[in-house]
Amino acid sequence: MTTAQIESIGQHNGQTVTLQGWLYNKRKAGQLMFLIVRDGTGFIQSVVFKKEVDEATWEAAKEATQESSVIVTGVVRKDDRAPYCGYELGVQKLELLQKVPPESYPISHKEHGPDFLLENRHLWLRTPSQMATMRIRHEVMAASRDFFNQRGFINVDAPIITANAAEGTTTLFEIDYFDDKAYLSQTGQLYMEAAALALGNVYCLGPVFRAEKSKTRKHLTEFWMIEPEMTYIDLDDNLKIQEEYVAYVVQRVLQNRASELKFLERDLSKLESITAPFPRIAYDEAVTLLQSMGSEIQWGDDLGAPDETLLGEHFQKPVFVHRFPTAIKAFYMKPDPERPEVVLGADLIAPDGYGEIIGGGQRIDDYDLLVQRIEEHKLPLEAFDWYLDLRKYGSVPHGGFGLGIERLVAWLAGAPHVRESSPFPRTIYRIKP
Amino acid sequence: MTTAQIESIGQHNGQTVTLQGWLYNKRKAGQLMFLIVRDGTGFIQSVVFKKEVDEATWEAAKEATQESSVIVTGVVRKDDRAPYCGYELGVQKLELLQKVPPESYPISHKEHGPDFLLENRHLWLRTPSQMATMRIRHEVMAASRDFFNQRGFINVDAPIITANAAEGTTTLFEIDYFDDKAYLSQTGQLYMEAAALALGNVYCLGPVFRAEKSKTRKHLTEFWMIEPEMTYIDLDDNLKIQEEYVAYVVQRVLQNRASELKFLERDLSKLESITAPFPRIAYDEAVTLLQSMGSEIQWGDDLGAPDETLLGEHFQKPVFVHRFPTAIKAFYMKPDPERPEVVLGADLIAPDGYGEIIGGGQRIDDYDLLVQRIEEHKLPLEAFDWYLDLRKYGSVPHGGFGLGIERLVAWLAGAPHVRESSPFPRTIYRIKP
Repeated sequence: MTTAQIESIGQHNGQTVTLQGWLYNKRKAGQLMFLIVRDGTGFIQSVVFKKEVDEATWEAAKEATQESSVIVTGVVRKDDRAPYCGYELGVQKLELLQKVPPESYPISHKEHGPDFLLENRHLWLRTPSQMATMRIRHEVMAASRDFFNQRGFINVDAPIITANAAEGTTTLFEIDYFDDKAYLSQTGQLYMEAAALALGNVYCLGPVFRAEKSKTRKHLTEFWMIEPEMTYIDLDDNLKIQEEYVAYVVQRVLQNRASELKFLERDLSKLESITAPFPRIAYDEAVTLLQSMGSEIQWGDDLGAPDETLLGEHFQKPVFVHRFPTAIKAFYMKPDPERPEVVLGADLIAPDGYGEIIGGGQRIDDYDLLVQRIEEHKLPLEAFDWYLDLRKYGSVPHGGFGLGIERLVAWLAGAPHVRESSPFPRTIYRIKP
Repeated sequence: MTTAQIESIGQHNGQTVTLQGWLYNKRKAGQLMFLIVRDGTGFIQSVVFKKEVDEATWEAAKEATQESSVIVTGVVRKDDRAPYCGYELGVQKLELLQKVPPESYPISHKEHGPDFLLENRHLWLRTPSQMATMRIRHEVMAASRDFFNQRGFINVDAPIITANAAEGTTTLFEIDYFDDKAYLSQTGQLYMEAAALALGNVYCLGPVFRAEKSKTRKHLTEFWMIEPEMTYIDLDDNLKIQEEYVAYVVQRVLQNRASELKFLERDLSKLESITAPFPRIAYDEAVTLLQSMGSEIQWGDDLGAPDETLLGEHFQKPVFVHRFPTAIKAFYMKPDPERPEVVLGADLIAPDGYGEIIGGGQRIDDYDLLVQRIEEHKLPLEAFDWYLDLRKYGSVPHGGFGLGIERLVAWLAGAPHVRESSPFPRTIYRIKP
């Protein structure tokens, strides 16, 4: 007997196969039972006709409850009316491996509140919408690595445990490190700068941590970030690779996860239009544009969430806002030589209110200027001795960016909150399961 | 002018190209200067002949010190005698971008001690051996993901911040989590079990943490681990995928990083022989074999480092040791139904003394037995409520394994210590840079 997976069930049309999975839902109509079976790769309607199966199978099908583990053998039949995958299984045999006691499974087919679902994240992952979101996340991760690997970037992982407080200590988680104190890394960027000066174009893709008390739908305390860093580039090169990368990921997800996007009721034509180049707007112009749309933003302010939403609505595409005021950006960002009050950096704002998904730009490559900026930001100079070495020994123009994976996934999957695009989300109040 | 990379310099034979990089080393012989230039992708000998360049270029070449950043234009010439890459560059123009003051660069071409090198890890990465090791690490990471992605596994990232103490609290790092306490994850396995029951075959690949005071050459406090988890499998299926995976990674590294392996003076023929299947030996037999080779191991003891080295020498290939005593293994490992004093699990021991690179096996899928084992291990039952749910709701036979990336890289690269296979290694005494 062939063991098949629902994802590729079409290859077995007309054949008898065995599926190993779980009962998702069930409906009985006289001599017929309609079982929705899931196996992790998809869902399929499996029809049990009393006259066509033996007593044991009929009883097992009757006994099977939601999430009971089942092994089902039957004939694959193409049927365009069949829900989920366009095929159904004509059941010949059903084995009930473990029976979930009736009425005991916590997540029923009715609506549940987000707190309850997060409490049961280990089970919530079994629902079609969460499975689809996780499969889209997988595609985003794979596409991200493929994009940079194909371009010769070297994957260099940044450390998590760090003695450095790259952007200040207020949003850092502190760890007991044997008899000492350490922090969880907020960004791999500083390490990627060191790696880039050794290995050329590099990237890290790993978890980063922010001890922010933000309770918005865009914040997690732990999230994954890809941080490419490139040598001998300027801001324009940097933005070009960013837009090519984001467009590539969107098109890969459309290509390989179209059924998941459709299940999540995403507007595919809108995603199909996400191709490079992306619009670019200077911060100065963005402020004027936002004011004309009713925002109270003033030159010098950071963009608020409503400002980002307005820009997204205006452009209907990810949009680069470049040359932010130096005063509101991180110490390492390179001021524009022609206009030092703004930096040679840009944020990429996603449409549909998903906000900033990328921050990046040129890094200061002059030793004295970097020392001055560290001092202006009242950061401890001694913590940055090795980082300053990168400007002492073979400094070159370099830059990079960081993209938050969960925000990108939330946008693509249309998730109402970024916590749905993390397998096991961590927020201020939740670190379990 | 074409900007080229040394890695693919052969495509430009006979052409004039520009290289953007750094000076690695220099030798002067009268009217000739031999500059070894690196650009992150490789090293190339660049020859400056006084009669063929202008005064500015000759002076810049004279001025350039180790690790100064340089932009060099010249003609690519194939020359089998040329060191590093088999090509040399006939320099026409050299620009000195940033000059490192003479005698100031910390890492000279003489030997340095490991502490000094680790202190300067951000610069040590620029040396040929470390660059080669990092490029092998990149290949291991890419090959690992490709192997599982191609087989339909879904990448589900496990959380780092966790409330669980999966294998006891003694080797956990504690974090201040707002007003609470949390831990850094030692393993993603428990989360992968939850994900597998939702999504089928899954894996995570991320950093894990062990607060062990081990000072051996095989231990880091932070390292990367790949942890695949599969549903509806048995131990034999599990070991098959492990050996196919490891063999695939070894062959990919041989194929794509042969020049790095050669630079590191690895015996390629030994690595070429690493193909599936791998030898399998029961723990019982391993004890007898080790005793015959002079080990003092007794039935019931874990394998010591010298035992692992002896097994590696005996088999000259990675070897599975299966069915260890239940008493010395983790609480979640499934006892062999035919012999409950041993578990349905195996370790994979690498040759050449690199020790255990994989631990894995079947997980207990029976609710009552799992509760009993948690209690026997004196672990807090309430911390495992969600983990126990996986046996209450749709339990199925499942298993998986964990492979430590840095140990695998250390073996392939022939590194004397696992800290050389981590970009920024963390040990008991070192969290900087």
